[in-house]
Amino acid sequence: MKALKHKILEEGNVLSESVLKVDSFLNHQIDPVLMQQIGQEFAQRFKDAGITKVLTLESSGIAPSVMTALELGVKTVFARKRKSLTLIDGLYSAEVYSFTKKESNEISVSEQYISKEDNVLVIDDFLANGQAALGLTDIVEQSGATLVGIGIVIEKGFQTGRALLEERGIRVESLAIIDSLADGKVTFKEEL
Amino acid sequence: MKALKHKILEEGNVLSESVLKVDSFLNHQIDPVLMQQIGQEFAQRFKDAGITKVLTLESSGIAPSVMTALELGVKTVFARKRKSLTLIDGLYSAEVYSFTKKESNEISVSEQYISKEDNVLVIDDFLANGQAALGLTDIVEQSGATLVGIGIVIEKGFQTGRALLEERGIRVESLAIIDSLADGKVTFKEEL
Repeated sequence: MKALKHKILEEGNVLSESVLKVDSFLNHQIDPVLMQQIGQEFAQRFKDAGITKVLTLESSGIAPSVMTALELGVKTVFARKRKSLTLIDGLYSAEVYSFTKKESNEISVSEQYISKEDNVLVIDDFLANGQAALGLTDIVEQSGATLVGIGIVIEKGFQTGRALLEERGIRVESLAIIDSLADGKVTFKEEL
Repeated sequence: MKALKHKILEEGNVLSESVLKVDSFLNHQIDPVLMQQIGQEFAQRFKDAGITKVLTLESSGIAPSVMTALELGVKTVFARKRKSLTLIDGLYSAEVYSFTKKESNEISVSEQYISKEDNVLVIDDFLANGQAALGLTDIVEQSGATLVGIGIVIEKGFQTGRALLEERGIRVESLAIIDSLADGKVTFKEEL
């Protein structure tokens, strides 16, 4: 997605060979026009998939998900993060390990908002090691709903997330795939 | 705002005389069409105020803020919540006490995203005791920016939040003001 890649090149901050900071338009400040374009792009890519619900994770997934859900004419649900794994009635829960923060969080979604009749599109801001995406996938499985695919705003193509998801047969659509962050420079994967 | 009040009456869950749960369209599942209408309504009410930035608090403030910012043609920033008050360079921070959870959280915003030239509209999902709104106000003051007003999706009119804000001369615009949650029933304040 051209507008997104342009924004990453202009405003992204390469902090190390594996860390890209995009706080100026996605993770802290949000550019709503870009979010609208992102929503339109995800909706376009999944338009024939019969999606009935968009699932994401607080907080950075919310803006792209709301815009995608608006375009698709469905509702979106954000999974909540908690520190500890506490089983609570009426919640689907999964554990998500963060390699960056070296800690586990529980994520959970009320059973009221995903049912086995749903066709779910999962949206997240970043795909790196795939742990958050796998946690959301786990929640979709618990609900008995169908996982249609995963839409990612920015994929770190040099990490293992995509492989982990694709080996489970999950369709992954990323709007920008980063090949390398070496030498403080963002290089995108060439598109075919 | 008619569509919002209708939704509250249809889907809101009165848990006690002071607690209204709106997880089906605002705080967990999000109705993007309603969020768009909310954004249009806030933009309409503040259209002549020269707003340059919308400030909110993760997570439930993000959806209405992104839609408001889209309508106003500006960017939005969400303050992050943390457990402990740790002074970090480059951040505006404030402490917010939650009467519901009986705990304090630190909220913070990077100095990069609000400057003294900004005219800031603060948006939040609920106004009850006004603690979150005061914390956001505090952050705007630290930045030297001008606080144009506070836009609230649902105000609990029987709590002290509005009085605390208005005695500081802050303009408060709420899209639905609840007068009472007695007897498991939502009663709105009559509009003049």
